[in-house]
Amino acid sequence: MEETRILKIKQEILAGNSREADTFRAARWAEGTFMMDVMGSPGAGKTTLLLGLIEKLRSEGGAEVGVIEADLASDVDALKMKAAGVASVELNTKNVCHVEMGMVEKAHAAFGSRRFEYLFLENIGNLVCPAEFDTGCHCRIMLLSVPEGYDKVYKYPPMFAVVDALVVTKCDYLPMNPDFDMEALRKAAGVLNPGLKVFEVSARSGEGMDGLAAWVRGRRVATLA
Amino acid sequence: MEETRILKIKQEILAGNSREADTFRAARWAEGTFMMDVMGSPGAGKTTLLLGLIEKLRSEGGAEVGVIEADLASDVDALKMKAAGVASVELNTKNVCHVEMGMVEKAHAAFGSRRFEYLFLENIGNLVCPAEFDTGCHCRIMLLSVPEGYDKVYKYPPMFAVVDALVVTKCDYLPMNPDFDMEALRKAAGVLNPGLKVFEVSARSGEGMDGLAAWVRGRRVATLA
Repeated sequence: MEETRILKIKQEILAGNSREADTFRAARWAEGTFMMDVMGSPGAGKTTLLLGLIEKLRSEGGAEVGVIEADLASDVDALKMKAAGVASVELNTKNVCHVEMGMVEKAHAAFGSRRFEYLFLENIGNLVCPAEFDTGCHCRIMLLSVPEGYDKVYKYPPMFAVVDALVVTKCDYLPMNPDFDMEALRKAAGVLNPGLKVFEVSARSGEGMDGLAAWVRGRRVATLA
Repeated sequence: MEETRILKIKQEILAGNSREADTFRAARWAEGTFMMDVMGSPGAGKTTLLLGLIEKLRSEGGAEVGVIEADLASDVDALKMKAAGVASVELNTKNVCHVEMGMVEKAHAAFGSRRFEYLFLENIGNLVCPAEFDTGCHCRIMLLSVPEGYDKVYKYPPMFAVVDALVVTKCDYLPMNPDFDMEALRKAAGVLNPGLKVFEVSARSGEGMDGLAAWVRGRRVATLA
């Protein structure tokens, strides 16, 4: 039947992708690069969060940082990174809704011989599809912005279930969103993913950014140990 | 090759879906139902906009309105509609990132013999995948909320290209987002889609909702003429 055939092909694609991801992840580990996948809806604040986080990571001993900026089209985000002096490569998926290993490998190759202590993949703005695809990273985080609403945890469970941390962004909007129920969000996310780490931040005001940066540094050390 | 095989299957799926959509659309037309697909990112404000729009549509002669609420999981939005006295059916895609005709047909059948003057499909919160799938509606609109940022028009072009109207939501957030460039958004969207109608609204304050409701009424009349 059509559905069975599609499911079988999808499983083949995901299995092949996971094998490539394991090889890529091991190669980054061997060279001392900690790589993190950053996911979330369009406009959740991924680029702004990364700019703030990278500033924190560089402030201690000037860590070498690179960013792969994935988008369906355009180079808007890569240009923002370049303007901040961050090495970046634009990965245009040409309207594909997620990032797969073939794309990651090509984007990484575009850095040439440059090596990083931290390499970030800013994934496609999509709260659904990227959760399914291993991108060869050591750690995955997702952003949920306050204006999106806390109930997204009920409506888009797969991504909450697969990430290492949930970063609640744009917390400076909380006073305008009195119905944003942080406790309900933490509780529901904890049911989907008992080990999930939760951060409440505002990249604009800087709130919570030190704690997030400390956690990222710790994850690098633990991963490369 | 793998990619050619996948592309071929995808084309077959989309073609089959479009045939079913045409049949479904004609059946709704024959019974006097105008159906609209409402798309946008998670948290763009689809449910809140629909609640405001439906209130306007009902205020003139008490139009019969139904809503199909699509989500990966949960019945959060269908319950909100029911609480407002709107006939609604929850369509759970079971983690699929878009809505296809088989799902629309099942959800519509769940209304039984009830018939509507306006039937809305609140699509999955996803700015990418739903653009590709014809859902048998007479009209498609997309929402972009001010907190998401105007630059999404550059990064997610396909949806801007296929819809009949772009509704910029949460315009009450404009004072907190001085970098939201409405003119640049209108210009870029107009290049992707020269016939695109653009509305600036706030469902919270009611701003712009009368104009949107008038346009929807007009589209119904023109479609069913």
